Amino acid sequence: MSFQIAVLAGDGIGPEVMAEARKVLSAVEARFGLDIKYSEYDVGGIAIDNHGCPLPEATLKGCEAADAILFGSVGGPKWEHLPPNEQPERGALLPLRGHFELFCNLRPAKLHCGLEHMSPLRADISSQGFDVLCVRELTGGIYFGKPKGRQGEGEEEEAFDTMRYSRREIRRIAKIAFEAARGRRGKVTSVDKANVLACSVLWREVVEEVAKDFPDVTLEHIYIDNATMQLLRRPFDFDVMLCSNLFGDILSDEIAMLTGSMGLLSSASMNGSGFGLYEPAGGSAPDIAGKGIANPVAQILSAALMLRHSLQQEEAAACIERAVGKALENGYLTGELLHASERHMAKSTKEMGDFIADAI
Amino acid sequence: MSFQIAVLAGDGIGPEVMAEARKVLSAVEARFGLDIKYSEYDVGGIAIDNHGCPLPEATLKGCEAADAILFGSVGGPKWEHLPPNEQPERGALLPLRGHFELFCNLRPAKLHCGLEHMSPLRADISSQGFDVLCVRELTGGIYFGKPKGRQGEGEEEEAFDTMRYSRREIRRIAKIAFEAARGRRGKVTSVDKANVLACSVLWREVVEEVAKDFPDVTLEHIYIDNATMQLLRRPFDFDVMLCSNLFGDILSDEIAMLTGSMGLLSSASMNGSGFGLYEPAGGSAPDIAGKGIANPVAQILSAALMLRHSLQQEEAAACIERAVGKALENGYLTGELLHASERHMAKSTKEMGDFIADAI
Ligand SMILES: CC(C)[C@H](C(=O)O)[C@@H](O)C(=O)O
Ligand SMILES: CC(C)[C@H](C(=O)O)[C@@H](O)C(=O)O
Repeated sequence: MSFQIAVLAGDGIGPEVMAEARKVLSAVEARFGLDIKYSEYDVGGIAIDNHGCPLPEATLKGCEAADAILFGSVGGPKWEHLPPNEQPERGALLPLRGHFELFCNLRPAKLHCGLEHMSPLRADISSQGFDVLCVRELTGGIYFGKPKGRQGEGEEEEAFDTMRYSRREIRRIAKIAFEAARGRRGKVTSVDKANVLACSVLWREVVEEVAKDFPDVTLEHIYIDNATMQLLRRPFDFDVMLCSNLFGDILSDEIAMLTGSMGLLSSASMNGSGFGLYEPAGGSAPDIAGKGIANPVAQILSAALMLRHSLQQEEAAACIERAVGKALENGYLTGELLHASERHMAKSTKEMGDFIADAI
Repeated sequence: MSFQIAVLAGDGIGPEVMAEARKVLSAVEARFGLDIKYSEYDVGGIAIDNHGCPLPEATLKGCEAADAILFGSVGGPKWEHLPPNEQPERGALLPLRGHFELFCNLRPAKLHCGLEHMSPLRADISSQGFDVLCVRELTGGIYFGKPKGRQGEGEEEEAFDTMRYSRREIRRIAKIAFEAARGRRGKVTSVDKANVLACSVLWREVVEEVAKDFPDVTLEHIYIDNATMQLLRRPFDFDVMLCSNLFGDILSDEIAMLTGSMGLLSSASMNGSGFGLYEPAGGSAPDIAGKGIANPVAQILSAALMLRHSLQQEEAAACIERAVGKALENGYLTGELLHASERHMAKSTKEMGDFIADAI
């Protein structure tokens, strides 16, 4: 089995956590007899520095030639003076999503046993744990809808964006949410603002239609404003949350923060042909870059998602996830996950990678 | 001083908490020599039942003839089968906001001393308290932007909504946020998604312009996704949050839930001529309606906001707020704010109203 991976490590902690993911991938290659080839490309701030734009042509071509993209993280203070829509994050991620039609974004977020104290939630809520999968539509809605721009002059000059969804776009992402719920706790919560948005009214209609093919899955609808509230009171009541692009952006970040351990969360962005981009949910963390203390787990779990969803290597993916679970259960943790009093026991980025690779 | 108030008590707990607000208003009328006349009108579900629509013509006319609207709450299971955009909440609130151009929505949310345990946040976070004023634009953005609708057929049928903001609309709400910050802790956090939305790029530009006239106020920008996260970790770092219509809907509800005591939160929706609609932040709570246990404080504080912003009766407003503070500090609380073990000490809706009216 031979595969080609485009590695886009990016900025900040990207390169150091990517090194650990590569180490872990080498271990599963050996164990499962896979042959994975890697090509590295610049992306984000480093690409702006080296080539003048966050997503150079060579990077895009390299991704086109690959079976999947393993993405690190981009951005940092150095590029923050740029206009918002030329910055590394936006300038790299949105074009990649659009170009490869990565319409399906999976963002799993689980409060790990033993890490409840990391959650910003009250102890009696976090002690009940939670395990939510956010299924976010990623190439439609107000992110890509046309027209988008400005018109008029003086004080009447106005800007406009268009939120737009077709039945087809809603149906394909809804199906994925229902299928995912089948393999989990059998519940889909569809998030919308159907009391205000025409898009949300259509969204509800199509989601109801899709639900008919999944009689074994429970469907509920919730308004986005209420969703942000209920997640704070009873996160454990949610299983799969199905969201449009904008609402998924907001909710998935809220849920990630509710775990309190962003360094453990990975995400998959896929198209209809098995191609995908796999990346940690956290940012490039420039404040700790180069110190060897960043948590590589999110990047390692991104590699597992890549093995599962793009390379069809379920066994290898599960093996990585078990190895990560073993590290966490054994209290093998980077500093940010430890109480101040236990921080002397913190493992380095490299030690985490070594432990997980050895466990494979 | 004589005033005319349109009272729209609505559904669920609306009428019972409104009765207490009226009681408290009588007390301040007497004390401050005000002459307030009230006219009651149906709104929401009860208006659908009695007149076939959530905002009857007579109600609208009554509001037009008044100096302010004191609004209860609307909605309930009885009307949930209606299409989302015919339901009581949407069908009453959006037309009222549009008709009276109530562009400025103030949603103060404070974690009251002694009620920290109500917050869903971890004790070490909630113990630091917080006091956030959400200033939300209420008549623009994707709520009212045209075109909005559907087109096409079959699977390509699509729905669309338009987010739209002019410099004028952004400037007038931004000014209010900066003025409010001056009377508070001097910080404005403007919430946007400038890495994706053209509207947000204009929003940032205009907010920066307005900031120049307020050199004494600190301005920071934050993306909506990051805002939902940072509020969970460090709510105490925020003072005034300036939001567009949709982002304000989402964030103000998140912040309200972070207090854990929705029954204490009121909101003001105003236009440029001092006219306004004043309402509790919580819903109609049909599950406890008619039991005499609902917390009337949010409705009473809405009356205070009305006195301040529409009737220019600052002294009377402050007097109500002090009386409410006295009740809370003395542990004079409705059941939902008490630990289970102390619930036998819960005050009824009426007892709360009596205590606060007496304190005036
Ligand atoms: C960088 C930004 C455009 C992006 C988004 O809004 O989708 C990011 O917040 C994310 O969630 O991946
Ligand atoms: C009822 C609904 C249309 C309304 C809104 O979205 O503005 C409500 O959620 C609110 O915040 O007042």
